[in-house]
Amino acid sequence: MPYSYETDGAAIYRQSFATIRAEADLARFTPEEEQVAVRMIHAAGMVGLEDHIRFSPGFVTAARTALEAGAPILCDARMVSEGVTRPRLPAKNEVICTLHDPQVPELAKAMGNTRSAAALELWRPHLAGAVVAIGNAPTALFHLLNMLEDPACPRPAAIIGCPVGFVGAVESKDALWAAQPVPSVIVQGRLGGSAITVAAINAVASRAE
Amino acid sequence: MPYSYETDGAAIYRQSFATIRAEADLARFTPEEEQVAVRMIHAAGMVGLEDHIRFSPGFVTAARTALEAGAPILCDARMVSEGVTRPRLPAKNEVICTLHDPQVPELAKAMGNTRSAAALELWRPHLAGAVVAIGNAPTALFHLLNMLEDPACPRPAAIIGCPVGFVGAVESKDALWAAQPVPSVIVQGRLGGSAITVAAINAVASRAE
Repeated sequence: MPYSYETDGAAIYRQSFATIRAEADLARFTPEEEQVAVRMIHAAGMVGLEDHIRFSPGFVTAARTALEAGAPILCDARMVSEGVTRPRLPAKNEVICTLHDPQVPELAKAMGNTRSAAALELWRPHLAGAVVAIGNAPTALFHLLNMLEDPACPRPAAIIGCPVGFVGAVESKDALWAAQPVPSVIVQGRLGGSAITVAAINAVASRAE
Repeated sequence: MPYSYETDGAAIYRQSFATIRAEADLARFTPEEEQVAVRMIHAAGMVGLEDHIRFSPGFVTAARTALEAGAPILCDARMVSEGVTRPRLPAKNEVICTLHDPQVPELAKAMGNTRSAAALELWRPHLAGAVVAIGNAPTALFHLLNMLEDPACPRPAAIIGCPVGFVGAVESKDALWAAQPVPSVIVQGRLGGSAITVAAINAVASRAE
């Protein structure tokens, strides 16, 4: 066995978080936000991500309180829902991704939108008080904002808005940040994605590091 | 509906890839590698990633030929296996992730290693000619390299080695690059992760953009 390396998972986490705290500029975050930001940086493998992370006041408390009360987590992609560490969830919370529901392709065609956006229509029965995690599709975040323009649409408790990419990601996150219909976290700019989103969920789910 | 945005998935891909090709420096890649690199940049939302991508000669052909012949894809994490776009696979290839197999926790304890590394022991019956995709755990990549030190261990056809993070990611990818037991692609440095890894799989699976 010629390659030797750290094989203790807990030690790997400790060393990773220590490196992040030594290198990243986390001074502007509250202690609760700092824990979330550290996990997001960890998932991205990128010190410097912190410069793009924006928390609205009370986001961590709103999301954590909702999860402790049993709120479901609504995810735009299976890569997000599969990444959630179930033992960290405080109330065996349901983790829901409707993207592959058999109704979605027809719905998308009828709406003239992406399947990612259409899938959110199936969130409506679960949306009140939920934690929303959008880590892939800008069209999903835009469609959520449009749904929430209707005062009759149920409100989630908090939104993790981190879609990634080159078309609509910047714009949809800027729109969420400007509107802030509920407490939110975003990664401004093109960066984002399922791993960063999952990290934010796992961080608000439990204070354990 | 106050927010208006691009809702045509095909147009979103086209515009994204055009932006990447306008901004990224892709000149050193072969045409086959370029298609893979573009998808990796797309998944990361980050022009500049190309500077860290290294293909060994023949990687794309080796991985694509294996998939066309029906090879399975062996993934270290569910976020990787769930991200693979099934309709892009040329031979209804099996996508295997053994991380949550019930034998894994005991195996990890017995090995004194992480569950991510232990899960690879269950790859052995599938490893000959497979496409390996490691997008999360440096310990999985290190353990694979140690397995392949044994000449009796079956050889995969190609390795996508893109674990992410602050402990072992740099070192495990450098070790893969130095050893190159089979044609490989890596992202040098801390960057990597499931989305980039999935993008590489989806790109070698089909030439369609």
